[in-house]
Amino acid sequence: MIKSKNKINGEFELIKKISKKIYSSKDKKPSLWKNVLKGIGDDAAVIKFPGPNNRLFVTTDMIVEDVHFSLLWSTADEIAMKLSESNISDIVAMAAIPRYAFLSMSIKPNTSQKFMNCFMKGLMRSFNKHNVLLLGGDTTKGEKYVFNLCLLGESKKGKFRSGAREKDLICVTGTLGDSMAGLNLLLEHKKNNSYTKLLHDRSKKSLLQRHLQPKSRTAQEGILIGKYATSMIDVSDGLASEIRHICDESSVGAIIYYDKIPISLKTKKIASMLNSNPVDYALYGGEDYQLIFTIDKDDINKLKKKFKNFKIIGEIVKKKIGCLLSKNGRLSKLHKGGFDHLT
Amino acid sequence: MIKSKNKINGEFELIKKISKKIYSSKDKKPSLWKNVLKGIGDDAAVIKFPGPNNRLFVTTDMIVEDVHFSLLWSTADEIAMKLSESNISDIVAMAAIPRYAFLSMSIKPNTSQKFMNCFMKGLMRSFNKHNVLLLGGDTTKGEKYVFNLCLLGESKKGKFRSGAREKDLICVTGTLGDSMAGLNLLLEHKKNNSYTKLLHDRSKKSLLQRHLQPKSRTAQEGILIGKYATSMIDVSDGLASEIRHICDESSVGAIIYYDKIPISLKTKKIASMLNSNPVDYALYGGEDYQLIFTIDKDDINKLKKKFKNFKIIGEIVKKKIGCLLSKNGRLSKLHKGGFDHLT
Repeated sequence: MIKSKNKINGEFELIKKISKKIYSSKDKKPSLWKNVLKGIGDDAAVIKFPGPNNRLFVTTDMIVEDVHFSLLWSTADEIAMKLSESNISDIVAMAAIPRYAFLSMSIKPNTSQKFMNCFMKGLMRSFNKHNVLLLGGDTTKGEKYVFNLCLLGESKKGKFRSGAREKDLICVTGTLGDSMAGLNLLLEHKKNNSYTKLLHDRSKKSLLQRHLQPKSRTAQEGILIGKYATSMIDVSDGLASEIRHICDESSVGAIIYYDKIPISLKTKKIASMLNSNPVDYALYGGEDYQLIFTIDKDDINKLKKKFKNFKIIGEIVKKKIGCLLSKNGRLSKLHKGGFDHLT
Repeated sequence: MIKSKNKINGEFELIKKISKKIYSSKDKKPSLWKNVLKGIGDDAAVIKFPGPNNRLFVTTDMIVEDVHFSLLWSTADEIAMKLSESNISDIVAMAAIPRYAFLSMSIKPNTSQKFMNCFMKGLMRSFNKHNVLLLGGDTTKGEKYVFNLCLLGESKKGKFRSGAREKDLICVTGTLGDSMAGLNLLLEHKKNNSYTKLLHDRSKKSLLQRHLQPKSRTAQEGILIGKYATSMIDVSDGLASEIRHICDESSVGAIIYYDKIPISLKTKKIASMLNSNPVDYALYGGEDYQLIFTIDKDDINKLKKKFKNFKIIGEIVKKKIGCLLSKNGRLSKLHKGGFDHLT
């Protein structure tokens, strides 16, 4: 269910290969590229348009039944909401405003109208919350449900993964690892077929919702943070992976303070129950859709006056130092985790 | 393999239902809609942006293994080319210039690097021909191949399905029914397992290519026709279906001259061999990616001076007359054909 867990041959490797091929065409036809500010390699592509709000942001996400979601425990509206929020989160993480959506669906032949209505209800709930308009799409049939959303956003400027500078602080909104805790709880109950009972357990509801109905931060929050941040990214693949993206794109290193990673009490409890480390959920889980950003020390208080729901979890260092985890005064390499290794 | 053949519950019904739901939100939040010129219901959505080339066109298409393509006879580069050309055709049919593409892929776990390279080669061949840039996407795994392309185009103005007026002539570029003839030939040879032999039959190659490697008209052609046309659409679902779209969106009726529908000699031969009517291929086949347009009688010669590869196949009449087929001096109702009836 974790996005990066299911990527063929490692998504990033494939993206790198493709983008290498594509960007080689840049030299041949430079005029085509003159309005492209960001292509492959950030949360969304960025295209310059004339006018005041003159940058167009485009992101797309595909979700596949039994890969990204299971009908065992996800309802149609939850599937739609997750699809929407994950795309919106990509636009928000660029400090842009999500605007126009395009939905493609491969639907199983015996799909009920009720299922489709429920799906559309969930989609529109998320779209209405974020003021997104559905402007088009495509429907086809297939053996498994596959949904693809392409989302356009706009902004005067936006905030990229690149831009982090040495001595910047690394911050994160909300808490991390909740989505993974919810998923692990479901998987544990799948073993003895008790997940239906679990879904009705009120004490677990809020945590399960963090996996089944994750929420993107809002565009207002993204723009506010973007005003002070030097770089930004959303947590779709886990803290470790996202920090690496920032470091790669900004040509810097990072130290993450193990003890500062914000973990909710509920996630700590579940992790303890499942004999696992909740910090691993945060580092390698993903689908939390919180925002990770880097910011100059001097700007922290300015941001705090307007937005308080974030924690400092690390600092940007020289590139040659690499990406490190600081635990009990000892530094270790911040490895990528086991979820992108499919080769 | 025909797109509309495989739509769940009739794609158009689903689109109508969804768009009804969506457009009802227009009254609630009119400011969100102020830049939307076309939403669901044309080849692409149209969004107004400030500046000189100030309209953004967006289309998206999803193709599914064993629904839209078969690995029995399609190579990876052919699948990619068809995906690209079908999307490009939607933008060209709006007299806009295709610009930026976003590719989502659900790939089978054991996919070889060779397959992916071949796919990307086909995609880039089509993209390079039409000057399209691949700027992003998503990759995931799944049991069947599913590919989705979202394509952005731009134009100062564009040409829509609406705009046809009484007494306009109806025209079509190239020939129709070739893709369907190619598909039927493949399906016929599938029955006795001789399609491999067929694929090596040089005398059938050019026709098979019309199905396996269909080509969109170019942006230059679309813009040129769009300069004189009153409405335009591309043939993805068959002439009968496309004419209905123009009539619905323009609030007019149409008479199609049966004998004027341009059918190639090769397609006539195949149809005769398969005991079928080649005009049915044109009317109900689809995937020809030719352009159908309506034009004022007085403008026909102006267009002809610059672009010759089209035929007059009918005329626009009053709405109350409906969509008719004129054959041997007798009029009959132009029915939608059997490919959208899946309920």
